[in-house]
Amino acid sequence: MNNTNITPFNKPYLTGKEGHYIYQAVLSGKISGDGIFTKRCHEFFEFTFGFRKCLLTTSCTDALEMASLLIDIKEGDEVIMPSYTFVSTANAFVLRGAKIVFCDSRKDHPGMDEDLIEGLVTERTRAIVPVHYAGIACDMDKIMQVANKYNLYVVEDAAQAIDSYYTGADGVKRPLGSIGHLAAFSFHETKNIMSGEGGMIVINDERFVERAEIIREKGTNRSRFFRGEVDKYGWVDIGSSFLPSDIIAAFLYAQLENLADIQNKRKQIWNQYHTELSELAAKGHFNMPVVPAYASNNSHMFYLVFDSLDERNRVIKSLKDQNIYSVFHYLSLHKSPYYEAKYTGEELPETDRYSDCLLRLPLYYELNPEIVISAIKALF
Amino acid sequence: MNNTNITPFNKPYLTGKEGHYIYQAVLSGKISGDGIFTKRCHEFFEFTFGFRKCLLTTSCTDALEMASLLIDIKEGDEVIMPSYTFVSTANAFVLRGAKIVFCDSRKDHPGMDEDLIEGLVTERTRAIVPVHYAGIACDMDKIMQVANKYNLYVVEDAAQAIDSYYTGADGVKRPLGSIGHLAAFSFHETKNIMSGEGGMIVINDERFVERAEIIREKGTNRSRFFRGEVDKYGWVDIGSSFLPSDIIAAFLYAQLENLADIQNKRKQIWNQYHTELSELAAKGHFNMPVVPAYASNNSHMFYLVFDSLDERNRVIKSLKDQNIYSVFHYLSLHKSPYYEAKYTGEELPETDRYSDCLLRLPLYYELNPEIVISAIKALF
Repeated sequence: MNNTNITPFNKPYLTGKEGHYIYQAVLSGKISGDGIFTKRCHEFFEFTFGFRKCLLTTSCTDALEMASLLIDIKEGDEVIMPSYTFVSTANAFVLRGAKIVFCDSRKDHPGMDEDLIEGLVTERTRAIVPVHYAGIACDMDKIMQVANKYNLYVVEDAAQAIDSYYTGADGVKRPLGSIGHLAAFSFHETKNIMSGEGGMIVINDERFVERAEIIREKGTNRSRFFRGEVDKYGWVDIGSSFLPSDIIAAFLYAQLENLADIQNKRKQIWNQYHTELSELAAKGHFNMPVVPAYASNNSHMFYLVFDSLDERNRVIKSLKDQNIYSVFHYLSLHKSPYYEAKYTGEELPETDRYSDCLLRLPLYYELNPEIVISAIKALF
Repeated sequence: MNNTNITPFNKPYLTGKEGHYIYQAVLSGKISGDGIFTKRCHEFFEFTFGFRKCLLTTSCTDALEMASLLIDIKEGDEVIMPSYTFVSTANAFVLRGAKIVFCDSRKDHPGMDEDLIEGLVTERTRAIVPVHYAGIACDMDKIMQVANKYNLYVVEDAAQAIDSYYTGADGVKRPLGSIGHLAAFSFHETKNIMSGEGGMIVINDERFVERAEIIREKGTNRSRFFRGEVDKYGWVDIGSSFLPSDIIAAFLYAQLENLADIQNKRKQIWNQYHTELSELAAKGHFNMPVVPAYASNNSHMFYLVFDSLDERNRVIKSLKDQNIYSVFHYLSLHKSPYYEAKYTGEELPETDRYSDCLLRLPLYYELNPEIVISAIKALF
């Protein structure tokens, strides 16, 4: 089999300066966490998106765990989130003892159905965790309204949502991750901007800023020590080592410098998929992504939704026979081996439908989408 | 101030191939966790040290947290460990609800006094966490004897102990990290072998191998899926994202290939410190590290122990005035702001003494120790 004929699902992309920046980090004399490139990344995100406070983490999972520690989740607290999401959205809260209350997806979009959330609130509810699936915003006005009414925290799972926006009823276009009290981003290699593994917590609520630094530094006030605010540092709280090596930050910074170029390239690919596959969609072979009027599209993902599991699996197999790797994902969490017996809620038919019928097409910087498009057209 | 005249406490060292290997990782098409270099690192450690199973983690903190999850620490369980250690040794177990039972240090060495451990065991004790301070072995025969007698788990905190050994009563020389049920290593930039931030869990007890893979992969059976043992993977347990980017593993692998050279260089520096400062030690100005007959020395750290806090601080300041950066560390955890009110045990005078009187001298590959040695000699 000739490697050059393979179209993988994902392929990491080097902008060119990654190695140089890693070398600079080593020359700086500090490659542990919070070195020069970590600071540059923080400044970039805070400046570009207006986030109140950004802190790189080793993964989006770890950013969600930080959020769970910050809002002080305890045994028996309830957290509302979609069932159609990555396990880490749930695990971060389960690790602190939370009961997960799963919300079904929308009919037109895999994101959770905002109109169902209020019906899931109980006296034990502490937080809502909206997941901006495929980088497309949840309807944050509706979510913040429920949160404000019941005094709940909102943690945006913005793993896929870098450089994506929500325009609410007030007409203001806000970056995703800037609306909830806290937000978590991913820089996993499948994301628009990557560092292999990597993540970031965004703290929008001032009350959490100081404790976030402490929890991220193993429960110590080391950050204050380095700023000269205390004369020695010690153990003041629970915490973990959430900060990534500056090697990771150096790699990430090279990507960030090319954010505009990367986003343009991904938009071209996304639009090409959308344009060229619209005829087949119109004929009813599958549905394509819907971008609500309040949402922007960061072109993180292009997916198709088929009518059945069999049809979805037929397409995966046919593409694979042509060395094109498409993938499904997110088995309904409420039916997982770990949570099924603990789940006490209703059936979630839309979640199950996306779990069975959604297919993600390859989407990466160096992709030629024509190969995938031709192969799909040939199937119908 | 001229940078070339500064002797920092630590300086990361490039063996030369780090950048090349990172580039290779990108070319492989996978820079997320468990890529080609992660596998090479695992194989290196398993082959070189005979560890049953190795899994890279994002930090030693995370390896300790994995250990805490694996031995199923619950609210109210007791864990015995030294008070003279890094906060993560304790936090990893506190996060799961453990009560920490602190053990005092030895008179001749900052490691915990093995003869005091049995007196701290209660019906709630679940584990002993020996810390191989400065890479010098604790007396593991004594510790394993207590653990076996009371059916306790032993988690070796081998953060500083790569390539260091213990020779027990049976005459067998065993690598540190291979003796307890589980062990945690660090590759923080201050360690002999580094990746900025980084760590590894070693699983010596077969019963924990399968679950360790699951917990490290966000509580999913993804590792089994990739080995073709199950046809899809899902949420089966609690867990987190403990695996580092393959970028980190690529950097680490370049270091590992030069382990022998790095260790030789550090040993030269350590021995030079020891030889040239022995006269001042004999005169009673300070004590030098003690290496018991059962322990090897991996030259991770060279430290001096003074008679008082004032004397230790005078030396730090005098060296700093000559641009030489020496550091103290480990404020007694049982007296920390976080744990003091929770601590119900006795006074730990040796712990407090090391906390007040121990000084770490610079020790890194490219160091010329003569600069530090001359400066110290001039002080007495």
